[in-house]
Amino acid sequence: MKSFDISDAREKLNSLQAIIGYTFNDENLLFTSLVHKSSEEAKFLTKAYNAQSLEFLGDKVLSYVLAKYLFTKYIDKDEGTLSELIAMLGKASYQNMVAKDLHLDEYIYMETNLRLNLDKTSILADHLEALIAAIYLDSDIDTAEKFILDKYLRHAYKVLDAKNDFINYKNILIEHAQKYNLDLIYTLLNEYGPDDDKSFEYKAELDGHKAIATAKTKKAAQQMAAKKLAIEMNLIQ
Amino acid sequence: MKSFDISDAREKLNSLQAIIGYTFNDENLLFTSLVHKSSEEAKFLTKAYNAQSLEFLGDKVLSYVLAKYLFTKYIDKDEGTLSELIAMLGKASYQNMVAKDLHLDEYIYMETNLRLNLDKTSILADHLEALIAAIYLDSDIDTAEKFILDKYLRHAYKVLDAKNDFINYKNILIEHAQKYNLDLIYTLLNEYGPDDDKSFEYKAELDGHKAIATAKTKKAAQQMAAKKLAIEMNLIQ
Repeated sequence: MKSFDISDAREKLNSLQAIIGYTFNDENLLFTSLVHKSSEEAKFLTKAYNAQSLEFLGDKVLSYVLAKYLFTKYIDKDEGTLSELIAMLGKASYQNMVAKDLHLDEYIYMETNLRLNLDKTSILADHLEALIAAIYLDSDIDTAEKFILDKYLRHAYKVLDAKNDFINYKNILIEHAQKYNLDLIYTLLNEYGPDDDKSFEYKAELDGHKAIATAKTKKAAQQMAAKKLAIEMNLIQ
Repeated sequence: MKSFDISDAREKLNSLQAIIGYTFNDENLLFTSLVHKSSEEAKFLTKAYNAQSLEFLGDKVLSYVLAKYLFTKYIDKDEGTLSELIAMLGKASYQNMVAKDLHLDEYIYMETNLRLNLDKTSILADHLEALIAAIYLDSDIDTAEKFILDKYLRHAYKVLDAKNDFINYKNILIEHAQKYNLDLIYTLLNEYGPDDDKSFEYKAELDGHKAIATAKTKKAAQQMAAKKLAIEMNLIQ
């Protein structure tokens, strides 16, 4: 069997290392994390492990770093909220966004046909986790953590602000209602649209004030109404 | 509200710290990890977090350390095997065994009734994970890892040996076949029983030797045949 010379891929690997902001001591480790089993390059792998077993390890490294980050940032949140947040940050859709941001689709070795429906597979997400394990094995947990904080969590605000926003606004109203012994009322005013594409209109009422909001879920509509009401009542900026 | 004096629990906490082999800088953190929400002591908690949110963090710290341990110990195993092994080590039944070994049942604060059916709940397992997070937060990831390797994995051989048994015998044959350039052949001889309760009989052949074994899955039958053959060929004791 022809042995693969890693230098054939050097330019490509260098370009990716510039993007991810980490230079490997062992480029063969980076290469291994990028090789999907469908590719021609799979037969040139020389490590005892492959991208799939790296994915196993990377998934756990990622979960640990995310849990540490979320626990510290939202130290007063209950276990349910923390579990929801980590699930949102671990979804394939979020990971696909991160992987594309790093142009991983251009660097993963895979059969050409697979590129046609990349969004419908977990290939990008899987190799992103394999890459995390590769960085970790090539360095240490602190370096892997830095990569995750710098690159993986770059889009986290889109997920976390949306989620945290709501939590806070609803909590602010609840606290105000409890403090002054007031009734806080959410009323479903309307449902629009077909079953598979519904919108919900909710009214929030507190202390003679009211606010109305529409969203694609009941929960989101209530929470947006809460936000409007909290603003109207000058409970927040 | 009466504030709880941690010194009331000092003797108890000291005794547990001796068992787990770690002395806390912040005993209130250890206390928090031991307080189930059903207990009287729950109203004396002063941290922003509780045992449940500690459990969230501890679960991820544990998974990371287990993944690192398994990946290193079984570096040539595929992702499926690694995932099976980590699932076995993360089961509530395994965690209950570890928790009892550490006498956690004597140290967790909970409503008396809950003690009657402790084995049917996840209370021990949950607080074991909370304890892991407490050690981690009080120290660092290396100290948490040491606790997991020393105490959590003390019973791992019971799980891992049983599983690994099979895997090693197949590998031993493969290595022998490759070394001497021999053909290693597995043949399905028979299938017995109805569709929902099948047994499979396999023959393993190598270097003029053969062995036959029957099991409930094709994989297990192959692996048992491999074990017999490896013994017959004096490749193992």
